[in-house]
Amino acid sequence: MTVDSLRPPAESGSPAPFYRAVGKEVETFRAAARRGSPVLLKGPTGCGKTRFVEAMAHEFGRELITVAGHEDMTSADLVGRFLLKGGETVWADGPLTRAVREGAICYLDEIVEARQDTTVVIHPLADHRRELPIDRLGITLSAAPGFQLVVSYNPGYQSILKSLKESTRQRFVAITLGFPTADVETDVVAREAGIDESTARSLVALGAAIRGLDGSALNEVASTRILILAGGLVAEGLGLRDAVQSAVVEVLSDDPDVIRALGELADAVLPRP
Amino acid sequence: MTVDSLRPPAESGSPAPFYRAVGKEVETFRAAARRGSPVLLKGPTGCGKTRFVEAMAHEFGRELITVAGHEDMTSADLVGRFLLKGGETVWADGPLTRAVREGAICYLDEIVEARQDTTVVIHPLADHRRELPIDRLGITLSAAPGFQLVVSYNPGYQSILKSLKESTRQRFVAITLGFPTADVETDVVAREAGIDESTARSLVALGAAIRGLDGSALNEVASTRILILAGGLVAEGLGLRDAVQSAVVEVLSDDPDVIRALGELADAVLPRP
Amino acid sequence: MTVDSLRPPAESGSPAPFYRAVGKEVETFRAAARRGSPVLLKGPTGCGKTRFVEAMAHEFGRELITVAGHEDMTSADLVGRFLLKGGETVWADGPLTRAVREGAICYLDEIVEARQDTTVVIHPLADHRRELPIDRLGITLSAAPGFQLVVSYNPGYQSILKSLKESTRQRFVAITLGFPTADVETDVVAREAGIDESTARSLVALGAAIRGLDGSALNEVASTRILILAGGLVAEGLGLRDAVQSAVVEVLSDDPDVIRALGELADAVLPRP
Amino acid sequence: MTVDSLRPPAESGSPAPFYRAVGKEVETFRAAARRGSPVLLKGPTGCGKTRFVEAMAHEFGRELITVAGHEDMTSADLVGRFLLKGGETVWADGPLTRAVREGAICYLDEIVEARQDTTVVIHPLADHRRELPIDRLGITLSAAPGFQLVVSYNPGYQSILKSLKESTRQRFVAITLGFPTADVETDVVAREAGIDESTARSLVALGAAIRGLDGSALNEVASTRILILAGGLVAEGLGLRDAVQSAVVEVLSDDPDVIRALGELADAVLPRP
Amino acid sequence: MTVDSLRPPAESGSPAPFYRAVGKEVETFRAAARRGSPVLLKGPTGCGKTRFVEAMAHEFGRELITVAGHEDMTSADLVGRFLLKGGETVWADGPLTRAVREGAICYLDEIVEARQDTTVVIHPLADHRRELPIDRLGITLSAAPGFQLVVSYNPGYQSILKSLKESTRQRFVAITLGFPTADVETDVVAREAGIDESTARSLVALGAAIRGLDGSALNEVASTRILILAGGLVAEGLGLRDAVQSAVVEVLSDDPDVIRALGELADAVLPRP
Amino acid sequence: MTVDSLRPPAESGSPAPFYRAVGKEVETFRAAARRGSPVLLKGPTGCGKTRFVEAMAHEFGRELITVAGHEDMTSADLVGRFLLKGGETVWADGPLTRAVREGAICYLDEIVEARQDTTVVIHPLADHRRELPIDRLGITLSAAPGFQLVVSYNPGYQSILKSLKESTRQRFVAITLGFPTADVETDVVAREAGIDESTARSLVALGAAIRGLDGSALNEVASTRILILAGGLVAEGLGLRDAVQSAVVEVLSDDPDVIRALGELADAVLPRP
Repeated sequence: MTVDSLRPPAESGSPAPFYRAVGKEVETFRAAARRGSPVLLKGPTGCGKTRFVEAMAHEFGRELITVAGHEDMTSADLVGRFLLKGGETVWADGPLTRAVREGAICYLDEIVEARQDTTVVIHPLADHRRELPIDRLGITLSAAPGFQLVVSYNPGYQSILKSLKESTRQRFVAITLGFPTADVETDVVAREAGIDESTARSLVALGAAIRGLDGSALNEVASTRILILAGGLVAEGLGLRDAVQSAVVEVLSDDPDVIRALGELADAVLPRP
Repeated sequence: MTVDSLRPPAESGSPAPFYRAVGKEVETFRAAARRGSPVLLKGPTGCGKTRFVEAMAHEFGRELITVAGHEDMTSADLVGRFLLKGGETVWADGPLTRAVREGAICYLDEIVEARQDTTVVIHPLADHRRELPIDRLGITLSAAPGFQLVVSYNPGYQSILKSLKESTRQRFVAITLGFPTADVETDVVAREAGIDESTARSLVALGAAIRGLDGSALNEVASTRILILAGGLVAEGLGLRDAVQSAVVEVLSDDPDVIRALGELADAVLPRP
Repeated sequence: MTVDSLRPPAESGSPAPFYRAVGKEVETFRAAARRGSPVLLKGPTGCGKTRFVEAMAHEFGRELITVAGHEDMTSADLVGRFLLKGGETVWADGPLTRAVREGAICYLDEIVEARQDTTVVIHPLADHRRELPIDRLGITLSAAPGFQLVVSYNPGYQSILKSLKESTRQRFVAITLGFPTADVETDVVAREAGIDESTARSLVALGAAIRGLDGSALNEVASTRILILAGGLVAEGLGLRDAVQSAVVEVLSDDPDVIRALGELADAVLPRP
Repeated sequence: MTVDSLRPPAESGSPAPFYRAVGKEVETFRAAARRGSPVLLKGPTGCGKTRFVEAMAHEFGRELITVAGHEDMTSADLVGRFLLKGGETVWADGPLTRAVREGAICYLDEIVEARQDTTVVIHPLADHRRELPIDRLGITLSAAPGFQLVVSYNPGYQSILKSLKESTRQRFVAITLGFPTADVETDVVAREAGIDESTARSLVALGAAIRGLDGSALNEVASTRILILAGGLVAEGLGLRDAVQSAVVEVLSDDPDVIRALGELADAVLPRP
Repeated sequence: MTVDSLRPPAESGSPAPFYRAVGKEVETFRAAARRGSPVLLKGPTGCGKTRFVEAMAHEFGRELITVAGHEDMTSADLVGRFLLKGGETVWADGPLTRAVREGAICYLDEIVEARQDTTVVIHPLADHRRELPIDRLGITLSAAPGFQLVVSYNPGYQSILKSLKESTRQRFVAITLGFPTADVETDVVAREAGIDESTARSLVALGAAIRGLDGSALNEVASTRILILAGGLVAEGLGLRDAVQSAVVEVLSDDPDVIRALGELADAVLPRP
Repeated sequence: MTVDSLRPPAESGSPAPFYRAVGKEVETFRAAARRGSPVLLKGPTGCGKTRFVEAMAHEFGRELITVAGHEDMTSADLVGRFLLKGGETVWADGPLTRAVREGAICYLDEIVEARQDTTVVIHPLADHRRELPIDRLGITLSAAPGFQLVVSYNPGYQSILKSLKESTRQRFVAITLGFPTADVETDVVAREAGIDESTARSLVALGAAIRGLDGSALNEVASTRILILAGGLVAEGLGLRDAVQSAVVEVLSDDPDVIRALGELADAVLPRP
């Protein structure tokens, strides 16, 4: 497995967001970005999808416009709507329309949660047409150069009732992100939480042990994110075991039996204070 | 099976869209178009329905107005609505109304997804009346010469709950599109992706192998569209096997077992680098 | 079975719509119309319900106002609503209200699809009161002489969840329309499609053969309408078998087995070219 | 069983509506009306509930305001709403509020179909308070003398999901209406349809025969209303058997077997022409 | 069981509402009222919950603001909303907000029928905070002294789907009301209906007999309210048995068998005329 | 188990809210607050979650903005909306937006009841971004220093249909609150209700006995809150057993058998008067 670090940004003075590559996600994203192909990011909660998109946007020097999908989101939330100003209705661009006009990367986070009209509205943007018809205005916008669609998706979540339509999926290049190797994850946790490498390694070991459990009792495994949250509590002076109890054990389950079992696992994996 | 290429456009200077006919779809569409009969395009995702309509509109020198159906679409999205301007409500034609006034082809993509009032509104347009009643305006428009309805439909998708009403279906001439022959598909993939014929042939061979699988594990087979997407990544320098992984394998399934099986199929079908 | 042709219109110079009576529908409609009794037209898709109402309206010299029912239709779509004009709300009559004021025939096509408030709103119009209360205006209109309600209904369609309420049904005189005899249907298809009698007879023979099938595989039988559509493609130069494939076989089903069986039936029934 | 005829109206010059009492409905209504108690009319479709209320309103010299309940009716449809006029919102009384102000009889037809807020809104009007709180205006109206609530209800219809709440029912005096005796019904049919007594008696005999059938095949029995409709077609010159076919047989069912059985019953009961 | 009568109102000249206490409801309400604790009234339909609250409000000299809950009620119906006046949106207090400002008793009748947002909105009013946050105005009101919440609830009604949330219930002091003793109920019926004690005693005996039935056939038992309604018809001259038929028997059921059984029970319990 | 009392507030003159710590909730909250990490409070109804947040806000000298979640709450209720003022639409911040601007603690009570868009809207606030995108304004706010999200959650309540999404949960530090020890709870009840320690101890003993029951018959155990409510009735002069009946027994169940059993438990546990 190759581990790339990102190239320094060519055109911007701001520091590159911290991202450590896990597989071939960087090369694949670069190829898709050069072609303008839309990208579908697949991966579990808290594995770094948002960070990865921030890093790629920085590398390409493009603005990043992020929209969090939810089940009440409609196409108007993406495209725009009329507002009443001074007795006139004036049009207000939605985030997708702004990205289309400005050539930005539009990142639709967990788009599958949204109502279907939000996925259909991206169809003509996601094929050879690269167009956004805005029916309410009676116009069709051509996407500016640099515009790219990125959508995220958590396969562990999706039910049969809520999955991307095939006619939507087959317009995307899919990139699967997973959790990093132990060394990379230790590096990330120590840096993000502001703790020493040894403590970070303990947290990563606990994360790996939880990920190795038969998953049936947990809805989802321990993410890098919750290891960083636990590390942060330690950095503020809380004991490691207490931090793990609040940021890992109690977060992963409400079931007293599961909480007890996770606690015993933490006792076994973490160093004695 | 006859393979037609399209006649050059009679009246327009713009280049004809690239379309390679697969069966008798071109003759049938021409007969229906001359008569003004509505057309129902049936076929799987990514087989070229949109391209076909673009090519036919070019041949007949008619404007093409495309509307993507979705489950929240209402008849007002097709017909139009009142907007508030300067304290007055002013009427704004919807895309269907514009097509009726201008004699354009109105292409309703996946109309079956829309709410039923959107299909009922086309009934008087789709029989001998060729009329669009606009209740909100209290008027009835007669369709201009050249107006034609085209709707698309993916039979593999439709559930019992969501299918076209019989009283709607029996107003249309149905044209079924499938995937092209290997030679035609190789030609299309090479041209669209910008890759050499040999690589395109490998991708088409993989597509055929996937289409030959017992389909129970896949929601839908590999479309020409995803073969073009994979080819595009190759054209940007990604390795063929990596491109196939992102644009074909990971797109077709989220199931780890299916992904592994598709990967092995790709290893077997694609040439060693 | 008596076959009436319509009497020439008494007061209008426009040609009478082409309609060939099948049973006693004409006498019954005349009696109901003279009395002002509402009429419920029952019959399958494409058997000519709309044509029949057009012909009767022409005979009685009354305006015909048609409204297509759909599941999102509300009583406001029938009765009217307030619109904002120049800072004032102004009332806009709906099609039912216009018919009540003008003494027209109001034809509610597939009214059972509409929401229940649309059927309740016609109750006082459909009994001895002949009144339309418009709650939003606080007024009650008496129907002008000549006003008549006609609603259509496809019994083959209706589920238990969607059927006319008994308190609605028992206000109507029911007229059942079926498909015409072979001679009449041949006459209709030849005239409407613009083809010779022999080809029309072949299409009618195919329609009869399909109607004679055990219906379990088809949602609905072949209507006169699709025979006319097939004939129209022939009139434009398409071969008879190809026209039947597009306008009949592919329209009646999406199931490959049913499509093959219908195709074999067409091969057997139609003359060899 | 006592049969009352209504007393002549005390104060009005308009003719009393034609109503023939069937049981004790008149005395009971009078007692409830004198006390101002709300009345719940129970009975099948077309048995004369509306006529009965019209007659009672006439007898007491009170205005009758009728509202037809439906499943989309809200309390605002009864109580009133704000409309925009000249840039101001102005309040428009609903029919219930008008009845409360004017001391009229408010007849809510099939109120059980309405949404529950419409039944709750009548609670304070239907007990010792006789008040209508209008939350939108922040006021509470006391009902004018003479105000009385009458609601109708068809017990044969109601499902468990849609029935009156007990806390609503127990505020009403219930009056059950049924079909009249043969002599009374013959009188009603002859008078309303404008036919001779002998034909009316035949129709009534058919109605009685249908009401005597094991009801499992019919949603509801033949009402007096459809006998009058059939008689009306006869008065316009249609044959008795044809009139019965359209106004009775085809109205009562869509099931071919039931239609045939009803037709045979009609052949047996009606006199040969 | 102690039977209190209410103390004369301290500060008001209007007569105290007639209420006869059944258990300890009066002492308990007084203790809760002095403390400002919210009260949950439990009891069957028509047992006098509204009367009881009226009497307590009178005793404490507080205004009583009553709101009837229904399933379409939203928090805006309680708290208030913006209305458009003269081109401005102006805020209109809802009944709960008025009670909070004025220190009134706010009686939410059958609040469990309302949408959940209406119960959540009362949470900060129903604990130590005694606050009403009005998000639309961006303010939080402190309840004026004397403000008290009273909600009613019919345990016999509630399904699992519709019950008060535990986090709501545990903010209330619960007072259960039942039917009064025979003597008290006779007194109430005679006084309210305006009939002699002997007739009232007969009605109360019938009510007790019905309440003693195995309840499975009835949705709810006979309330004091319907006994009063029956008495009222007698006071207007209707026979006792006929009054019972309309106000009790036909109200309690639509089932012919149950109606017959209740009628036989009435024949047995009531005195012969 | 350590029992902390809160440190006196550093910067404010108002008295600290009364809160007695039960476990490590105070240290954990302090660590999370210093870091700005969002906190998820888990615990049963009435155990003191609101009090705890009030105490922590006081300690840190931050404003506390509380929002009660309910199932009709939308993201606009949190973020803000446009209102019409003087013919202009003006933006009104919602409570979350105010907290973000002012650096307050935003406490979302029972957020899981809200619609999913309300939880998604907090995602960018609950990770390293600390941003609130307001799509309607086209802006993104950075949270002011001191801003902290706190959400509460009752694990005993949640169904599979209504639980926090994993991608939401894993952004929070979870703190579980339970009921305090008997000594602490006695102290709390005596102080809050204004009763002597002996009576408070009796109520706490009853609460413990109820919590020790096999829970299947109760939806939730007796909270500290209802013990305080019972104590309050005693402080107003009601007998202890009567106060327990209204504030504990009748509140915990509507089932006559359960009410009787709880009453017998109260008879056994409480001292004889």
